[in-house]
Amino acid sequence: MGVVIPLEDNKNKQASVKPLVDLTMSDMERVNQLILSKAGSDVQMIPEVANHLISSGGKRLRPMLTLAAASLFGYEGDAHVKLATSVEFMHTATLLHDDVVDESDLRRGKSTARTIWGNQASVLVGDFLLGQAFRMMVDVGSLEALDVLSTAASVIAEGEVLQLSVAKNMETTEDDYLQVIRAKTAALFAAAAEVGPIVAATSNANRKALKSYGMNLGLAFQLVDDVLDYGGSSSELGKNVGDDFREGKITLPVILSYRRGTPEDRTFWREAIEGGNSDGANLEKALGLIRRYGGLSDTIARAQHYGTIARDALAPLPASPWKSALIEVIDFCIDRVS
Amino acid sequence: MGVVIPLEDNKNKQASVKPLVDLTMSDMERVNQLILSKAGSDVQMIPEVANHLISSGGKRLRPMLTLAAASLFGYEGDAHVKLATSVEFMHTATLLHDDVVDESDLRRGKSTARTIWGNQASVLVGDFLLGQAFRMMVDVGSLEALDVLSTAASVIAEGEVLQLSVAKNMETTEDDYLQVIRAKTAALFAAAAEVGPIVAATSNANRKALKSYGMNLGLAFQLVDDVLDYGGSSSELGKNVGDDFREGKITLPVILSYRRGTPEDRTFWREAIEGGNSDGANLEKALGLIRRYGGLSDTIARAQHYGTIARDALAPLPASPWKSALIEVIDFCIDRVS
Repeated sequence: MGVVIPLEDNKNKQASVKPLVDLTMSDMERVNQLILSKAGSDVQMIPEVANHLISSGGKRLRPMLTLAAASLFGYEGDAHVKLATSVEFMHTATLLHDDVVDESDLRRGKSTARTIWGNQASVLVGDFLLGQAFRMMVDVGSLEALDVLSTAASVIAEGEVLQLSVAKNMETTEDDYLQVIRAKTAALFAAAAEVGPIVAATSNANRKALKSYGMNLGLAFQLVDDVLDYGGSSSELGKNVGDDFREGKITLPVILSYRRGTPEDRTFWREAIEGGNSDGANLEKALGLIRRYGGLSDTIARAQHYGTIARDALAPLPASPWKSALIEVIDFCIDRVS
Repeated sequence: MGVVIPLEDNKNKQASVKPLVDLTMSDMERVNQLILSKAGSDVQMIPEVANHLISSGGKRLRPMLTLAAASLFGYEGDAHVKLATSVEFMHTATLLHDDVVDESDLRRGKSTARTIWGNQASVLVGDFLLGQAFRMMVDVGSLEALDVLSTAASVIAEGEVLQLSVAKNMETTEDDYLQVIRAKTAALFAAAAEVGPIVAATSNANRKALKSYGMNLGLAFQLVDDVLDYGGSSSELGKNVGDDFREGKITLPVILSYRRGTPEDRTFWREAIEGGNSDGANLEKALGLIRRYGGLSDTIARAQHYGTIARDALAPLPASPWKSALIEVIDFCIDRVS
């Protein structure tokens, strides 16, 4: 007579990134070593600026995806460590440039590099890290991986410019917004996951599965981030609630509330976002409207939709601890808001 | 009885970039087509910003170097066109970021992109062009060329950060300064020239020759630029005389004049450059000191020194119109100040 553990138990448990962290631990140590070494330079300011951001406690989800996506197919060399480091450098370079573009003072609860070393250093150290990322990819020598990651670099920048063009335009549709986050966030998740099967030299079907997993995980991740900006507590987030609102950033909770609102509500949104009336009192009103029209819960529902697609992308693969860990990460990303 | 043309005739003639322009004309048409196509995007702001700078009348010396350095060894494919375009995109991305870093309002006599579209667009469109540059290199498929150009991308950014660290420090030596311009300017000239023999699949000796030619040409080019900043007329330069001085930039004419000056002169330089007293009256005084201590003529002499090294780097190669054109470019770069 065995003990029957009901399946629901798993559902009730909070999903965790821990299985992925544990499985990739020894490879992530190699990634962290490589990060320190490749962010080094005789020009002292470079490691100072780079390490400020690198050591600021990001989850390093993207490089873990690359490691897991290679190990999932039995890869055992060191190409995945170099590509994972490249992916993290691309991400760090983007953050350095983003903080300049958004004029942000705080990231993950710490002062941004630009407030300490200035915009100049942030732009240039970002450029340096991007250059180092490409050198590591070249060192791996896979033209396919280079193709995937260099295309992602273009697409990310294109997405950021697109976001700039739609900024403060309340007529932005959900589809417009999806195009932005697909490019600026999900493309790097997709590339990070896709280069795993590439270095593992597995089938094209596996490559497409991991790319789809990464893309949809990235969409879910960004949508949940957008919800957290209106719902998380300041200490958890490392930034203040309503930062997006104050910066006039249009995210899905705002898009839904605007489109579902009354003409008066829409006037409020236009004055707040397009007109820059985004002070404390208006933030309170915005939060009220977002709640009234289900802006947060329905954004979470959209995130769950993409999470399901990510899960199904991996469905044909045989069961393994790696597969389970990658699937649990989907729920982990979404559970951050529940 | 033949007509003897004295060798000196050639020396008296002003050296010109025209032979290089003529020889590369049909390939440069392909480069220009590719520039337009690869700077294109559905995101309208991208081609707007990119074309503003791309169409602003730069000489496109760097892509011509790549084309000539490949054709010199009989190359006839299209890889050199793609790499030449990559090189120009890397250069354009650097200029976009430089104008943000230097807070410049004018380049080549036109408003900079950042004054029209803002710092944000300049940073991001620069990132996009860099991404597109890498995609074209990947498309060529030469890991050696990718290695050379991705290393150059890192080195350029490192040089820019180094320049930031030594900025406004009057104890900067000539060697410090050479390290900066070797990285921020000469490295791209060297890479542009080196990828020519790489795609032409010629000997390692030829590759080293062209790299050395490019590196030393780049040093000469930058030193002459520094002289022009204190000596050219505003309309020729597209910027005002003394821009470097006003921005507190330390270049070789200043380094020489500072080190050769009296203690009083050195106090003047420190107050002007480190203390920011760089208004019109002080510019006049600075120009006087630079002239008194031979700051311009001796910087030109240094440029000629590197020009000679560049010429000797090509000496072992058989005579050809390509070789002559590349050598004449050295004199052309230096003659800009004479």
